[in-house]
Amino acid sequence: MDVKEFRKAAYLVVDAIADYYEQLDSIPVEHQVKVGYLAKLLPAEAPEDPEPFDIINSDFHKLIMPGVTHWQSGNFFAYYPCNSSFPAMLAEMYSNMINAQGFSWDTCPAMSELETVATDWLAKLIGLPADFHSNSKGCGSIQGSASEAVLVTMVAARDRTLRNNPTQPSKLVVYCSDQTHTSTRKAAQILGLTMKVIKSDELGQLRASALLYQLENDIREGLVPFYLVVSLGTTGICVSDPIKELALAAGPYSLWLHVDAAYAGSALILPEFRDIHIKGISLCDSFNFNPHKWLQVNFDCSALWVKDRSALVLALSADAAFFKKVIEDGTLAVDFKDLQIPLGRRFRSLKLWFALRSFGAKKLRGMIREHIDLTDKLLSLIQADGLFCIVLPKHHLTLLPLQVTPLSSDEPLEMVNERTKYCAHILDVDPSISITTATFKGKFIIRINIGSPQTKYSHVASLYAKMKSAALLAREKKLSVNK
Amino acid sequence: MDVKEFRKAAYLVVDAIADYYEQLDSIPVEHQVKVGYLAKLLPAEAPEDPEPFDIINSDFHKLIMPGVTHWQSGNFFAYYPCNSSFPAMLAEMYSNMINAQGFSWDTCPAMSELETVATDWLAKLIGLPADFHSNSKGCGSIQGSASEAVLVTMVAARDRTLRNNPTQPSKLVVYCSDQTHTSTRKAAQILGLTMKVIKSDELGQLRASALLYQLENDIREGLVPFYLVVSLGTTGICVSDPIKELALAAGPYSLWLHVDAAYAGSALILPEFRDIHIKGISLCDSFNFNPHKWLQVNFDCSALWVKDRSALVLALSADAAFFKKVIEDGTLAVDFKDLQIPLGRRFRSLKLWFALRSFGAKKLRGMIREHIDLTDKLLSLIQADGLFCIVLPKHHLTLLPLQVTPLSSDEPLEMVNERTKYCAHILDVDPSISITTATFKGKFIIRINIGSPQTKYSHVASLYAKMKSAALLAREKKLSVNK
Repeated sequence: MDVKEFRKAAYLVVDAIADYYEQLDSIPVEHQVKVGYLAKLLPAEAPEDPEPFDIINSDFHKLIMPGVTHWQSGNFFAYYPCNSSFPAMLAEMYSNMINAQGFSWDTCPAMSELETVATDWLAKLIGLPADFHSNSKGCGSIQGSASEAVLVTMVAARDRTLRNNPTQPSKLVVYCSDQTHTSTRKAAQILGLTMKVIKSDELGQLRASALLYQLENDIREGLVPFYLVVSLGTTGICVSDPIKELALAAGPYSLWLHVDAAYAGSALILPEFRDIHIKGISLCDSFNFNPHKWLQVNFDCSALWVKDRSALVLALSADAAFFKKVIEDGTLAVDFKDLQIPLGRRFRSLKLWFALRSFGAKKLRGMIREHIDLTDKLLSLIQADGLFCIVLPKHHLTLLPLQVTPLSSDEPLEMVNERTKYCAHILDVDPSISITTATFKGKFIIRINIGSPQTKYSHVASLYAKMKSAALLAREKKLSVNK
Repeated sequence: MDVKEFRKAAYLVVDAIADYYEQLDSIPVEHQVKVGYLAKLLPAEAPEDPEPFDIINSDFHKLIMPGVTHWQSGNFFAYYPCNSSFPAMLAEMYSNMINAQGFSWDTCPAMSELETVATDWLAKLIGLPADFHSNSKGCGSIQGSASEAVLVTMVAARDRTLRNNPTQPSKLVVYCSDQTHTSTRKAAQILGLTMKVIKSDELGQLRASALLYQLENDIREGLVPFYLVVSLGTTGICVSDPIKELALAAGPYSLWLHVDAAYAGSALILPEFRDIHIKGISLCDSFNFNPHKWLQVNFDCSALWVKDRSALVLALSADAAFFKKVIEDGTLAVDFKDLQIPLGRRFRSLKLWFALRSFGAKKLRGMIREHIDLTDKLLSLIQADGLFCIVLPKHHLTLLPLQVTPLSSDEPLEMVNERTKYCAHILDVDPSISITTATFKGKFIIRINIGSPQTKYSHVASLYAKMKSAALLAREKKLSVNK
């Protein structure tokens, strides 16, 4: 494919992308395929001879697209979102044009420097204190995912602890709550470290009293607590742990405090949310959230800030003479390879920078507020009918954790769970909407989240109509509960 | 930015990309900036109000591009390459359009299934035996980097070893040679495991005798060897370890054998290379190479195959009820989150599939052969003048590890190194070419690699003219060696 053919093919792809976003509402959000569908439709081996782009493009639309779940659809209410945006897509086109490896400053200075600028911009937008900015001992970096952010900070914390207090790694303990995202378990598992899961309170929050009880107990047994994950917006029900309460309690124990705000972090661009939820952040060691979830930056773009950059570099640098090149002024040249797991890295800051400039802070705040407002409106519809109830006294941000309302005040939880499962099943097999489920304190819940830029009131109203009829069917269903 | 504005802006970006590739030869390959250049040119905070795309686009060209190192230039001879291609770029546009999260089969079936198909295609192209294909107990997956491939297989190997032979993790030992890429050191460091570096022979190869000596020694001391990295095309000088010799020797010790073929793996699409270098691969546990280096697939696309998929899943799965959805037939639905570090994942197989189809195997073989041929031609130019000598009896693939030829047969190595450094410095400050350096067995070397699809004979001839004049200057330079 020469430049001329690329130009033609790329125009065609641009048109297909524009058409896709114009037609998203008419496409069922759920995929249309069964397991193993694709291999049957494709040859068993790569072709020997070149195939024309028209054929490849037509196969993409005919064979690939039916197997796609449309995360950008206005009818996507599952998981947390994964926002795309036009400005971020344009930046990705440039990033792929350049296709440089920005592992150290010198291999593509613009990539390293824009990452510093863009994460500083973002830090200011969400109100992170100055000791997380790049002109302090801290800095921001863009990781691929919140999982990587947990892993790299856990490694830095482990090494810092072992430097200050040499001990058996088998004595080290990671702490989180029963509401913390699985990435913490996975990181501890990868590192072969002990993890203790502390029971959250009835609202799903990790409280200082429970933390202190566990810490004291473990220290008595000769263990060495070293790392705590504090969640801002948990995965299951979007509850936030009290950062300041936990940080003050943990203070004397020299724990590394990592704040995982993967989804909810985007809401910190709203002063009204920030004032409540970010108190105590200056007592923490690291903070992470995913602009690729709710801030209109295409995946992957997970922003991690640390207060002590050198703790990460000491843990993650494995240098070779090969990478040493003379740099005029070492103090400012960040080699981001030393802040992450992989060596290679893409130009991810470009899409963050394009999106922040193209939308501007006001519009981004407006979008977040609109999703919160749509969630409140959905809740009003729900409350007017009383067919569902929320498993919390108050929902958080854009997440509604719901059960089908018990048929009577003494209906056993098992029955309510079965009824909710049946209702979830009806919604789940409907390809026109996408929802997910979870459990909270023994309760099976339907989890509705509003976070796609394409979601308008009409999508919410249409979702509720389906929820209502599913709930009515679930109420009428004769259930036999075995356990 | 609405759909109409996107269409207009995206056409403009397509044109800019096409122009860039047409004009690459007229742009100096090296960046034009000093450390800290960018922050001075940008505001300290994100804008409150939206900025028009024209301004953002113009800033991209005015402020970002001067800080870019042009890895796609025909004059890029540094590191190993990071190939872009038009078909892969088109696929990335679609991947960003979809912007789905393919962590499990159900969240975007096409993403999981195409990854299986495309890695199977690739496995067959490079001649990997059937037990690495997806219809066996093994499978392929696309990781972000070779570093992640080493890390995840090291975790799987550690856990498999501890299951079969419960012991202190502090007794476990990772093995590699002094030529192995730093990613192995980094993975062992992240996992807190002991690593032993075995001295390579005079050609830079890890030999069975040296491995066995170290293994026996460590076992006598009560240590538990469990993981060995075998390199196919090392980073410094592109030497390949003898897979079969090492695998046969390591057999009785139950080591996990990981083959790191990050760069050289692409050359396995050539039967003439495969026949020599892949012998013994069926005795290994995992094999990794980066199509994003030399196979025209944009970064990131690092293909990892394992023979025992369940070893990875047991080590890396950290499931939550949250992700459980009914899947019609569990046997074929691979949840790729359980084969990697992060949870989220991009649609990376799309660019691999587009590239393989668009080029076809023959053209890809032709491109690899052309780079090897250009390397031989550069070597002929070098040998005709005798100003440089190769530090190996024979170079490998497209990498020339060079020293300035000693002025006399008894010139001390320190002097030759200093002269080579001076020559490298002259080449390094020339913005029209990009080269790197390394050391091998105490020898400072200039490292020339040919791997950009844009590199033609004219680039090589022009590079050699610069090398020649730099070598002549280096020969005349009066050097004082301190050490």
